[in-house]
Amino acid sequence: MSLAAADAEEPIGVAVVGAGYWGPNLVRNFQACPEFHLRWLVDLDKTRAERVLGRYSTVRPTDDLASVLADPAVGAVAIATPAGTHLEVAMAALSAGKHVLLEKPLAATFDEGRRLVDEAERRGLTLMCDHTFCYTPAVLRIRELLRGGELGELHYIDSVRINLGLVQRDIDVLWDLAPHDLSILDFILPDNVSPVSVSAVGADPIGAGNSCVAYLTVRLSTGGIVHIHVNWLSPVKVRTMIVGGSKRTLVWDDMNPSQRVAVYDRGVDLAGAEALGSEERRDLLISYRSGEMVAPALAEREALRAMVTEFGEAIRGGRPALTDGRSGLRVLGLLEAASESLRNAGTPVEVKA
Amino acid sequence: MSLAAADAEEPIGVAVVGAGYWGPNLVRNFQACPEFHLRWLVDLDKTRAERVLGRYSTVRPTDDLASVLADPAVGAVAIATPAGTHLEVAMAALSAGKHVLLEKPLAATFDEGRRLVDEAERRGLTLMCDHTFCYTPAVLRIRELLRGGELGELHYIDSVRINLGLVQRDIDVLWDLAPHDLSILDFILPDNVSPVSVSAVGADPIGAGNSCVAYLTVRLSTGGIVHIHVNWLSPVKVRTMIVGGSKRTLVWDDMNPSQRVAVYDRGVDLAGAEALGSEERRDLLISYRSGEMVAPALAEREALRAMVTEFGEAIRGGRPALTDGRSGLRVLGLLEAASESLRNAGTPVEVKA
Amino acid sequence: MSLAAADAEEPIGVAVVGAGYWGPNLVRNFQACPEFHLRWLVDLDKTRAERVLGRYSTVRPTDDLASVLADPAVGAVAIATPAGTHLEVAMAALSAGKHVLLEKPLAATFDEGRRLVDEAERRGLTLMCDHTFCYTPAVLRIRELLRGGELGELHYIDSVRINLGLVQRDIDVLWDLAPHDLSILDFILPDNVSPVSVSAVGADPIGAGNSCVAYLTVRLSTGGIVHIHVNWLSPVKVRTMIVGGSKRTLVWDDMNPSQRVAVYDRGVDLAGAEALGSEERRDLLISYRSGEMVAPALAEREALRAMVTEFGEAIRGGRPALTDGRSGLRVLGLLEAASESLRNAGTPVEVKA
Amino acid sequence: MSLAAADAEEPIGVAVVGAGYWGPNLVRNFQACPEFHLRWLVDLDKTRAERVLGRYSTVRPTDDLASVLADPAVGAVAIATPAGTHLEVAMAALSAGKHVLLEKPLAATFDEGRRLVDEAERRGLTLMCDHTFCYTPAVLRIRELLRGGELGELHYIDSVRINLGLVQRDIDVLWDLAPHDLSILDFILPDNVSPVSVSAVGADPIGAGNSCVAYLTVRLSTGGIVHIHVNWLSPVKVRTMIVGGSKRTLVWDDMNPSQRVAVYDRGVDLAGAEALGSEERRDLLISYRSGEMVAPALAEREALRAMVTEFGEAIRGGRPALTDGRSGLRVLGLLEAASESLRNAGTPVEVKA
Repeated sequence: MSLAAADAEEPIGVAVVGAGYWGPNLVRNFQACPEFHLRWLVDLDKTRAERVLGRYSTVRPTDDLASVLADPAVGAVAIATPAGTHLEVAMAALSAGKHVLLEKPLAATFDEGRRLVDEAERRGLTLMCDHTFCYTPAVLRIRELLRGGELGELHYIDSVRINLGLVQRDIDVLWDLAPHDLSILDFILPDNVSPVSVSAVGADPIGAGNSCVAYLTVRLSTGGIVHIHVNWLSPVKVRTMIVGGSKRTLVWDDMNPSQRVAVYDRGVDLAGAEALGSEERRDLLISYRSGEMVAPALAEREALRAMVTEFGEAIRGGRPALTDGRSGLRVLGLLEAASESLRNAGTPVEVKA
Repeated sequence: MSLAAADAEEPIGVAVVGAGYWGPNLVRNFQACPEFHLRWLVDLDKTRAERVLGRYSTVRPTDDLASVLADPAVGAVAIATPAGTHLEVAMAALSAGKHVLLEKPLAATFDEGRRLVDEAERRGLTLMCDHTFCYTPAVLRIRELLRGGELGELHYIDSVRINLGLVQRDIDVLWDLAPHDLSILDFILPDNVSPVSVSAVGADPIGAGNSCVAYLTVRLSTGGIVHIHVNWLSPVKVRTMIVGGSKRTLVWDDMNPSQRVAVYDRGVDLAGAEALGSEERRDLLISYRSGEMVAPALAEREALRAMVTEFGEAIRGGRPALTDGRSGLRVLGLLEAASESLRNAGTPVEVKA
Repeated sequence: MSLAAADAEEPIGVAVVGAGYWGPNLVRNFQACPEFHLRWLVDLDKTRAERVLGRYSTVRPTDDLASVLADPAVGAVAIATPAGTHLEVAMAALSAGKHVLLEKPLAATFDEGRRLVDEAERRGLTLMCDHTFCYTPAVLRIRELLRGGELGELHYIDSVRINLGLVQRDIDVLWDLAPHDLSILDFILPDNVSPVSVSAVGADPIGAGNSCVAYLTVRLSTGGIVHIHVNWLSPVKVRTMIVGGSKRTLVWDDMNPSQRVAVYDRGVDLAGAEALGSEERRDLLISYRSGEMVAPALAEREALRAMVTEFGEAIRGGRPALTDGRSGLRVLGLLEAASESLRNAGTPVEVKA
Repeated sequence: MSLAAADAEEPIGVAVVGAGYWGPNLVRNFQACPEFHLRWLVDLDKTRAERVLGRYSTVRPTDDLASVLADPAVGAVAIATPAGTHLEVAMAALSAGKHVLLEKPLAATFDEGRRLVDEAERRGLTLMCDHTFCYTPAVLRIRELLRGGELGELHYIDSVRINLGLVQRDIDVLWDLAPHDLSILDFILPDNVSPVSVSAVGADPIGAGNSCVAYLTVRLSTGGIVHIHVNWLSPVKVRTMIVGGSKRTLVWDDMNPSQRVAVYDRGVDLAGAEALGSEERRDLLISYRSGEMVAPALAEREALRAMVTEFGEAIRGGRPALTDGRSGLRVLGLLEAASESLRNAGTPVEVKA
């Protein structure tokens, strides 16, 4: 994978749509990227766009999306509006021949997401999903270690993402937070491993109308298990992922900047278990590794900056982005399965192929 | 609850049965308790008992349980043998008129546990389960805060108990580790809250023959949710329990001796949600508390010592122990429900009343 | 202390001088402050100023300080150049009738600093030192607790500020890092406590030409002791300050965002020691408090933003800033004493009044 | 270094003198060591000895030291009485031909310590100082890494040992706590590095009569610096030692059982600095390593057990113990120098050869 800087071509004109929670981050990072020339910040509420840009910016605020899409200087559109609007806004941008970057989740439903993916592919345009965490140095390293075999076979993943979060009116905690974990999962899984089924349980103890605490289980094609805990009600912020492998186990603690990733040469080995008939003999073959821990040096780099760079490179190269529309679609498939399971008391739901 | 020292009566003669993993801890604590006079250490393998006692002890090792049960100087028996033997050994002790302390779990099955509880009650003997964690200063404080209402209504409990554990041949990780969490749950729940159903998922990625990673969900009568993660394969040792309440949320981190319990005045409040029809209005009433955290001073005291003391006091007082046979039985009920759910892909199983 | 937003008057025109390490932070924060209108970014190397401003800014880059000082729209100048140039640049700005903000340390020497303070006072202009840490929510709280008496009498302060730092050619680690600790000390000390003497030891184990590791001790007028450890060679970043008081002790851990400040009701009490003649009796009167810890809720707010706001308010109000030139001068006095002690193997040096 | 188990010879009869704070730990560990046969526990207060032994022990309590020293079955004496009594008790034991283990510090003064060392050497008896920390797996590893050259040249050591400690009547915090750090220093230093001078500052802010907070600086023959912070008044317990080397830097955090030792491949390199005349050129040659961190797997083993074993092996082998009387004497030399410096406002004091 190459995240190298773009070449000396003319920067790509870009417009950011949505000046809410995430938009300002996109504005800042597109401005910092030489690959792009940020031309517009669009919001239905023009004063909100003006406020985000401040008094010193030459970027133009507007509430007129149609004009922006008609602007030939704009080659790409980054959309940070609510998921329910993604289909309409992104489809308009694609129809106008613009490359599109979408905030997670890709769309409000799997079917809407599929329509966007199909349209982009039909037109040969780049459709990318801003799975920001995938561009953190930590996750890039995890991907490398897991896909490169250094952790061995994947045994289990346990992810915890809890915090005193913004309780939302229209979506539950699964749709708010689990896209992060599921997009990371999609990103790091080796090619020969895939999710098979999803189950989920949740609770709404405060009466918010949606689950505020939820637990999601994904079964993998290899027999491994992935478990995700998302929670809006925790007074402490925890962002931990354990990736258990047959050779080594990796612990990612995103709240510990001085040691985000730790790789443990510790674990249980079960020599020749498959060949054994009797429990007595198997028992003798369990052994424990208790080796050292290595915390690799990771650059401290803003993930969003790398994501924006990848968007530029995918456009230039005419290749799918690392987190392209199809990965956004797979995440939607897992989320829809999770929602269905949640409605059915945790009954496992098969993942759409 | 009183854990006061026993009075000046003659100490109770006691025998420990089982010189394996846990027996030596019982030996040490019974020796340190003036309420008891430790007379025997029994093990099928007498040399193992001798090794535990060492070269300087006046306590007698033996492999002859029958003689010990016939010893009129022995008033109580503490049993630290595998769960599969609990029914036989404990029933023999009760039949001999001895008070009985049992390692967790109380028995191999709910039915066996019930037979022991019934027998003890019929004979008017003390039957106690060594739910050691309930006697830690941390759990005693959690119980006080939750039952005393200082945390408000119970919203959720999230417990994580993971470590590179001894993979066992005969039981899965649920039966090995979850008794700790379930006994704590049973201990701290207010009287008007009870478990309604249990579901569980698990995986055996190393091919050990039993689940090595498992997740257990308990639904409470109040709509609250309890979730427990137990895992033998984690290279890091985590023992954390979050107890989320409507007023405050408590975090117990047993791996942090300098601050095991922290009570956060942080959370989400949803004023008057029940009276509202429209989502718009509800949204306005969500508010966030962001107050201080208080870490109460806790004594550093060995839990097992307090447990042994409670055993003595329950015998003397002719009253049920804090963690009596019935609490051990309730834990067995939850474990059996969890196992049934595990076999059925996580389908919730009702808890036996 | 009031940090309230400025009134609706015309914003103060401001120029930032120095586009190196710290200048960009000033640029960002002056832009975000409605009290100011940022007009110029000055650097000897104009392209560096251009790079900092980027392609989207309406702020003007220049290398012509004289023109900026002649610009009547500029009412204030913020100087982030090396300390050796502070006297010249700041004196020019004061002479042009501009209010001045200076990066720490105020000047290269105590005498240069005094000339700036005198000049500003003679002209009735605001002279402020950017002791950024004093404007963190943590330090503001520490000041309040210590000066408000909630910690009791000040017994000791122990500060550690170590990291793999930029080894500098022209100054040692004391002059690089200790200004932070000393300015905090100056900021939080109650009015009736003052530094009396300073001693310092250091080492240059890598042969850099200046101390890379240093320890500084300040004796207080009350008999208390302050100790500061600064170090460029540590692979781990530590920023901890313990403020020990007779009633409570506060621990500030700036690397722990979820719990930066903790106030412990733990300590040693020595009742009536002063009245005792015999050691035997004194011994009996030692007692230990082992109470709870409280971690107050602190806003997460950028200190530099509050500092810039204070600069505006001090100018508007015609009052000394919280960290005015005189506080910068006191810090210089401590630094010069430390350097003298360092040259004399740690012999204590009296602090200039 | 070999810590192998002793051979099958007759165990060495041993008596422990002193049933106070530390004595019970010696009793427990001598009982657990097959190399020894614990025969007596001696205390001026016989009931205290009885209490320590408890009701189940075959070890004999006594207040009659003379009889114990006359007992031919006793080959060794372990002394855990106050330092002021070491000379008398240990000299009596040596005179009776017994091998001697002494709690730290070896004696109340350097001269008393020397008399003991001389006497033991004259008689060919083992004299060992219980520098317990030297036998922790962490310190053994640090010694190996530093003396083996894996850390490179020693640049600095920074040690912090603070806690809410027992304020003592007869000694200050330096004599109470710094022996731990100084004995570790003596243990881990390579043969070609030695302490040259010591300076110390301290404070007694609570009026206890002795310093409760102290800072000690040791200059090494190589230009390196060692700094030790000891403190009885801290509400938090910190035990950290940073060992900075030219190749790697090691951090020992004894309060973090899951990762006590971490070796960082991070640091500052100064290529060819010694050969340079001009500051400009030197500046260009500073470079930074930012490599991985490795936390070696360490056994969890009781240090005291290894210390007792070493005592037995030194006796059997007729060789000096790893922490023999001479090492105890060197620690006394550093302590006396520190006290002299403390009385002289931190003036450095040369270390006795």
